[in-house]
Amino acid sequence: MKKHNFSAGPCILPSSVLEKAASAVRNFNDDNLSLIEISHRSKPFVNVMERARELALEHLGLQNKGYKALFLQGGASLEFLMVAYNLLEKKAAYLNTGTWSSKAIKEAKHFGEMIEVGSSADANFNYIPKNYNIPTDVDYFHCTSNNTIFGTQLQSFPDVSIPMVCDMSSDIFSRVLDFSKFDLIYAGAQKNMGPAGTTLVVVKEEILGKVTRHIPSMLDYKVHISKDSMFNTPAVFPVYVSMLTLEWLKENGGVAAIETINNKKAALLYNEIDRNPLFKGFVANKEDRSKMNATFNLLEDGLKEQFDTLWNAAGINGLNGHRSVGGYRASMYNALPLESVQVLVDVMQELEKNA
Amino acid sequence: MKKHNFSAGPCILPSSVLEKAASAVRNFNDDNLSLIEISHRSKPFVNVMERARELALEHLGLQNKGYKALFLQGGASLEFLMVAYNLLEKKAAYLNTGTWSSKAIKEAKHFGEMIEVGSSADANFNYIPKNYNIPTDVDYFHCTSNNTIFGTQLQSFPDVSIPMVCDMSSDIFSRVLDFSKFDLIYAGAQKNMGPAGTTLVVVKEEILGKVTRHIPSMLDYKVHISKDSMFNTPAVFPVYVSMLTLEWLKENGGVAAIETINNKKAALLYNEIDRNPLFKGFVANKEDRSKMNATFNLLEDGLKEQFDTLWNAAGINGLNGHRSVGGYRASMYNALPLESVQVLVDVMQELEKNA
Ligand SMILES: Cc1ncc(COP(=O)(O)O)c(C=O)c1O
Ligand SMILES: Cc1ncc(COP(=O)(O)O)c(C=O)c1O
Ligand SMILES: [Mg+2]
Ligand SMILES: [Mg+2]
Ligand SMILES: [Mg+2]
Ligand SMILES: [Mg+2]
Repeated sequence: MKKHNFSAGPCILPSSVLEKAASAVRNFNDDNLSLIEISHRSKPFVNVMERARELALEHLGLQNKGYKALFLQGGASLEFLMVAYNLLEKKAAYLNTGTWSSKAIKEAKHFGEMIEVGSSADANFNYIPKNYNIPTDVDYFHCTSNNTIFGTQLQSFPDVSIPMVCDMSSDIFSRVLDFSKFDLIYAGAQKNMGPAGTTLVVVKEEILGKVTRHIPSMLDYKVHISKDSMFNTPAVFPVYVSMLTLEWLKENGGVAAIETINNKKAALLYNEIDRNPLFKGFVANKEDRSKMNATFNLLEDGLKEQFDTLWNAAGINGLNGHRSVGGYRASMYNALPLESVQVLVDVMQELEKNA
Repeated sequence: MKKHNFSAGPCILPSSVLEKAASAVRNFNDDNLSLIEISHRSKPFVNVMERARELALEHLGLQNKGYKALFLQGGASLEFLMVAYNLLEKKAAYLNTGTWSSKAIKEAKHFGEMIEVGSSADANFNYIPKNYNIPTDVDYFHCTSNNTIFGTQLQSFPDVSIPMVCDMSSDIFSRVLDFSKFDLIYAGAQKNMGPAGTTLVVVKEEILGKVTRHIPSMLDYKVHISKDSMFNTPAVFPVYVSMLTLEWLKENGGVAAIETINNKKAALLYNEIDRNPLFKGFVANKEDRSKMNATFNLLEDGLKEQFDTLWNAAGINGLNGHRSVGGYRASMYNALPLESVQVLVDVMQELEKNA
């Protein structure tokens, strides 16, 4: 039975990408060698790495603007640390919009003074703080564009004179933004880009090299840039599949085209959450709702078993909310078709009819 | 045409493993979902991680001896840093047997006093230093069991009263050793274990928690242990393929059985290098020769083109030496069949006949 995969990450990838990935594991480039058994220094893989880096910049509109794209290991969690190691000399400003922002803050505060400019921890992160002030004397400002767990998303970003760093792990390549507002963007691959095991870092080179501490080689963005993202053996398969997904996005019209579909999917689901008397959204203000992760609750606990049976029977996967929020979370990343959202909406309406 | 893959890493993996890996990318566990699109917190993947950790300890004979196995990101290069972060309080002793040892030393020396107890840098690392002294007041002793680039291998390890740390990236699971002599073993997967993108760390828990510095979460072995190697999203595909390779090793009789074959392969090739008047081994002393990576040179430069044409025509891949050594390097990891070594020997003899 066909699955409708609403998993929060690792998550659905385009089926054409999965086909090509599987086939490269058997025989890559018709060389009678698997993708995963050739040297990362061989021409075919160097080409993959270069193409992936180029496509990432292209999709963000950041070619020839002083940015470099890197595919590193360690996940977004290692970036929490690397950002501070490379940029935090005296103090930094962080906006705390959820679990991942909090973790980024936890790692960074050992490197200097931490200014939490805003936080929605008081309401279990069910809203995005507004009207906060960012001091002008900090080394950088850090925010999380989409809060995977709580289902909130920043709809606008402040104008700042200091470097702006953003964790875009769960909404990169999902909507058009002026990405040149950001000086460092990072994203674990395992949402809109590829399988777990590689992290995209896009950094404006001019912000680097300004801290006085010693930076270990593996944590130093300048080292990775100087080696074209091959300082050590990269995660070959995750990088290759990320390249395939970025190619797929290009063939499908790029970020602008996918944003149109993402808007349709989000509208379809949120309309049903609002209309259907059995369900209620988790996020306090509609304008803070994430188009990637919709969090919602059943108003009557007694219907849980019936609802769970229905969506499981419909082939839906990965709908349970994160333990820190409870309820349900429907993740609607780029590769999820509108049709899958329709299946979920049908199930919600079926529950209403039966109830 | 069938390839004979002598690549130094990423390198050959068992063909049955590649088949299973490709099929899991299409449909894992008959769930109609790809391995790379399910949550790493889902039962099927948690089982994979647990099985991989268990098999690693089993193959090393380290079950129920106070060791934990972790599958981390960042490659062996990140371990150069993590070892020092977690263990180096005042001073450490390192044996310098090649490029990788030198890099480990470079990262560690920022954390305390560095005592290089021995080095073969004076002869481009073509031998293993002997009779060196390890001070008893260091925090640990670090060595590299197999020097991938130069083709030397430690045949014995010192008896020390302090913790012993070993980079086994290029010969783990290739030979029987008393692994309980070691307190921390690490190995990038991309030789005898799996694809690039995951690193095995096997650590005796009692050596941890003794340094006074703050350790960032992602670099703290205790944090990874406390989360069963799932502190953040692991490299799902590389861990899965590593598990498959460890299963394959078990089905094929384990480390002892593979060692017998590895010995045969090495004997076959080194005998030919020694016998054939056109070739000469790079390593100074025969007892230091690596059974994983055989480095050798053509004595007459004029034969290079002919030799390269011959081995390429025979389907041999990855035979060029590393730029810091030149000549040729035949990597004969666990998954390389004896038959492939025979093909190479045949080509060497053909060259001799033609010359
Ligand atoms: C917004 C965000 N940041 C960071 C992370 C952590 O990523 P990783 O597990 O790759 O370290 C996640 C994971 O879901 C995330 O959603
Ligand atoms: C012995 C040894 N140590 C360390 C490394 C570095 O590994 P990585 O590229 O995974 O960081 C290698 C890579 O070939 C190696 O052979
Ligand atoms: Mg969050
Ligand atoms: Mg409602
Ligand atoms: Mg070496
Ligand atoms: Mg000879």
